[in-house]
Amino acid sequence: MGAPPGYRPSAWVHLLHQLPRADFQLRPVPSAFAPQEREYQQALLLVAALAGLGLGLSLIFIAVYLIRFCCCRPPEPPGAKSPPPGGGCVTWNCIAALLVGCAGIGIGFYGNSETSDGVSQLSSALLHANHTLTAIDHLVLEMVERLDEAVRTELTTLEEVLTQRMELVAAARGARRQAETVAQQLQGLAFWRGVPLSPLQVAEDVSFVEEYRWLAYVLLLLLELLVCLFTLLGLARQSKWLVIVMTVMSLLVLVLSWGSMGLEAATAVGLSDFCSSPDSYILNLTQEETGLGSDILNYYFLCNQAVSNPFQQRLTLSQRALANIHSQLQGLEREAVPQFPSAQKPVLSLEETLNVTEGSFHQLVALLHCRGLHKDYGAALRGLCEDTLEGLLFLLLFSLLSAGALATVLCSLPRAWALFPPSDDYEDTDDDDPFNPQESKRFVQWQSSI
Amino acid sequence: MGAPPGYRPSAWVHLLHQLPRADFQLRPVPSAFAPQEREYQQALLLVAALAGLGLGLSLIFIAVYLIRFCCCRPPEPPGAKSPPPGGGCVTWNCIAALLVGCAGIGIGFYGNSETSDGVSQLSSALLHANHTLTAIDHLVLEMVERLDEAVRTELTTLEEVLTQRMELVAAARGARRQAETVAQQLQGLAFWRGVPLSPLQVAEDVSFVEEYRWLAYVLLLLLELLVCLFTLLGLARQSKWLVIVMTVMSLLVLVLSWGSMGLEAATAVGLSDFCSSPDSYILNLTQEETGLGSDILNYYFLCNQAVSNPFQQRLTLSQRALANIHSQLQGLEREAVPQFPSAQKPVLSLEETLNVTEGSFHQLVALLHCRGLHKDYGAALRGLCEDTLEGLLFLLLFSLLSAGALATVLCSLPRAWALFPPSDDYEDTDDDDPFNPQESKRFVQWQSSI
Repeated sequence: MGAPPGYRPSAWVHLLHQLPRADFQLRPVPSAFAPQEREYQQALLLVAALAGLGLGLSLIFIAVYLIRFCCCRPPEPPGAKSPPPGGGCVTWNCIAALLVGCAGIGIGFYGNSETSDGVSQLSSALLHANHTLTAIDHLVLEMVERLDEAVRTELTTLEEVLTQRMELVAAARGARRQAETVAQQLQGLAFWRGVPLSPLQVAEDVSFVEEYRWLAYVLLLLLELLVCLFTLLGLARQSKWLVIVMTVMSLLVLVLSWGSMGLEAATAVGLSDFCSSPDSYILNLTQEETGLGSDILNYYFLCNQAVSNPFQQRLTLSQRALANIHSQLQGLEREAVPQFPSAQKPVLSLEETLNVTEGSFHQLVALLHCRGLHKDYGAALRGLCEDTLEGLLFLLLFSLLSAGALATVLCSLPRAWALFPPSDDYEDTDDDDPFNPQESKRFVQWQSSI
Repeated sequence: MGAPPGYRPSAWVHLLHQLPRADFQLRPVPSAFAPQEREYQQALLLVAALAGLGLGLSLIFIAVYLIRFCCCRPPEPPGAKSPPPGGGCVTWNCIAALLVGCAGIGIGFYGNSETSDGVSQLSSALLHANHTLTAIDHLVLEMVERLDEAVRTELTTLEEVLTQRMELVAAARGARRQAETVAQQLQGLAFWRGVPLSPLQVAEDVSFVEEYRWLAYVLLLLLELLVCLFTLLGLARQSKWLVIVMTVMSLLVLVLSWGSMGLEAATAVGLSDFCSSPDSYILNLTQEETGLGSDILNYYFLCNQAVSNPFQQRLTLSQRALANIHSQLQGLEREAVPQFPSAQKPVLSLEETLNVTEGSFHQLVALLHCRGLHKDYGAALRGLCEDTLEGLLFLLLFSLLSAGALATVLCSLPRAWALFPPSDDYEDTDDDDPFNPQESKRFVQWQSSI
């Protein structure tokens, strides 16, 4: 009957959470999320360092391959027209790798938008929670002010009017005591007042960071797309300088890809640890930040039958006091108003205030119930642990594909470039039309060399 | 203080909503969403028919272009080796069109997943609303049963025990009356009991339809992807039969693309009309389907300061009755228990029941408040009017791109095919390696013909 089924860790969370972790001395580290502990930080840095290792290995592999290609190729008979065998294979390899890179870019765009969706779901849940918390504060303030006003004005007037009949004055004083009880109980319900943690601020910070992360990825993806397209253009037009520039750019993007892969892998592993059992970590963190009692935090973060409402007592007392005020006002209306007509106005005004307060009280009960805030908590977790993690895994796939594709391109480009016809017969041509006869001839020449 | 800012129509909704609509006699039709009216249905059908018109025009254009190409080309000198000018342009056109088609397919996959996201958000909001509504029913049933049980057993025992002191029996009878009042008031709060509309059923129906829609689009996208890839393969390998089969398939996919475009356009226009002011339509529809009072529906669908809680009266009466039971029980505990020790057990048991009932009452107040259900309504609208509409527009873009690309391909393929070398010198070759010498020779031959 509590909250509907909320967040459940996904299969990806379980899978990533079960990967072994080790610190810098390669001692195993427990995979519970503990970002403040040195061993756990080292474990995440080690995951990121694996990408650095991958970058180093792929650079060594490319260097060895190219050195072997430059220095160890069989001597060509002078004046031979036929190109070395396998040249076509090299060009096709390069094109296939670029197409795989483009597919990876598509996956990267999807992953980036998915990650962004998850983070925006987190921010909107935080904003919603902030709205609920401030609404509770405002509502309590409003109700307390209304009751204080009623005690100061109408009840004082009433006591002055009824001053001749002591039992009626006693009833009015009883109502005053009950109203003061309600105001006192209500003030204890504004539990978020004076808490230094603002979900609004957290949401703004998260959105700010996410904006720059998103932009950085879009720029990386566009850079890689441009590199792929211009490399293809360079190959098709057999433009040596374009291929050389693109080789350098490919090297740059290769380094960026491995770097982003390291960040993504470490973030995904850390996120999976967080997401496998977020409740206890979030509970402790919130308790430290807010100083709120664990009964209140347990109630909102767990929100099940086992956790009782920590405001139950105060709500019940306020409710009984409101009912008592109602019966005392009814008694005054019955007894006092026929004798003291000037008591009618304050009594009616008090009844009106009571009705409004009872309406606000029901709204306060609804706002204080764990259902709403727990639903926001579930939405935030789902955004972070489902959409954002899924997006990160797609970004990881993009980085892997582009690292593989760029390594292949870097191995193939210099070989393809070596197959281009000597530059002196076209470097001075300025015509850009790929279909002019000279271009066609050159293309045929290149194709026949494949 | 009511609900946080909910659904707002997006710019796309406004844009689509402002497009003029007309019925079959081309008389203007107001763009308010009214799917049951004949004129409005005709307006949507006319939008879909525009796609049919587009299909017809593009087929006529392709036919005229190809007939002109077949019948009006300049006579070729017999035995001429050089291909007609512009052949290369035709092949490159075809390849560029296929690449545009592939980009469109990527957009289509994104749009399909976005649409699906929106619909699943709608279903999950419906499931959540269903959970809240059934929780209200169960909670009311449970509370009424608990009160009935207390009245039948403990209060009856108490009256029997206290039978010698009439004023105490009167107090017990007063508590019984109050408990019966509470049970009666509570039964009026289970407003969804016996309502023939089940959000669960609606969610299941929506998910069922969406599953098939999603699958149909994935199949269409995969079919188009295969057509693009095999056409490219056919062009690269100069395989006449593959190009002919792909021409036929392209024609089929062209028809499917225009058909899906018609459906998407009509759905997007209808959805924009619905989304520009959904409240009144949904209110009327729900009132017809459920027979609930407009005060209850207004409260949940609008949920602002202007609409008062229709359950306020019943809640206040129940609350006062519960407070009265409490004071009567306290009186009994004070007066009766010292004299009649056997009254202690039922009084304590009644106090326990009262405490539990007050806890459940607070939960009921929270469930009945419009906040939770209105948030689900907002989430459902955002899913349908933001994600699903955006997805539909991406699918529309996909259909447009693929219709354009396929029309270009259909114009180019027969011309490219006519440029292939005569079939007798390779139709019997079985070798699939694109890099064998014969293939290379043929490729060069084809390239030189460009």
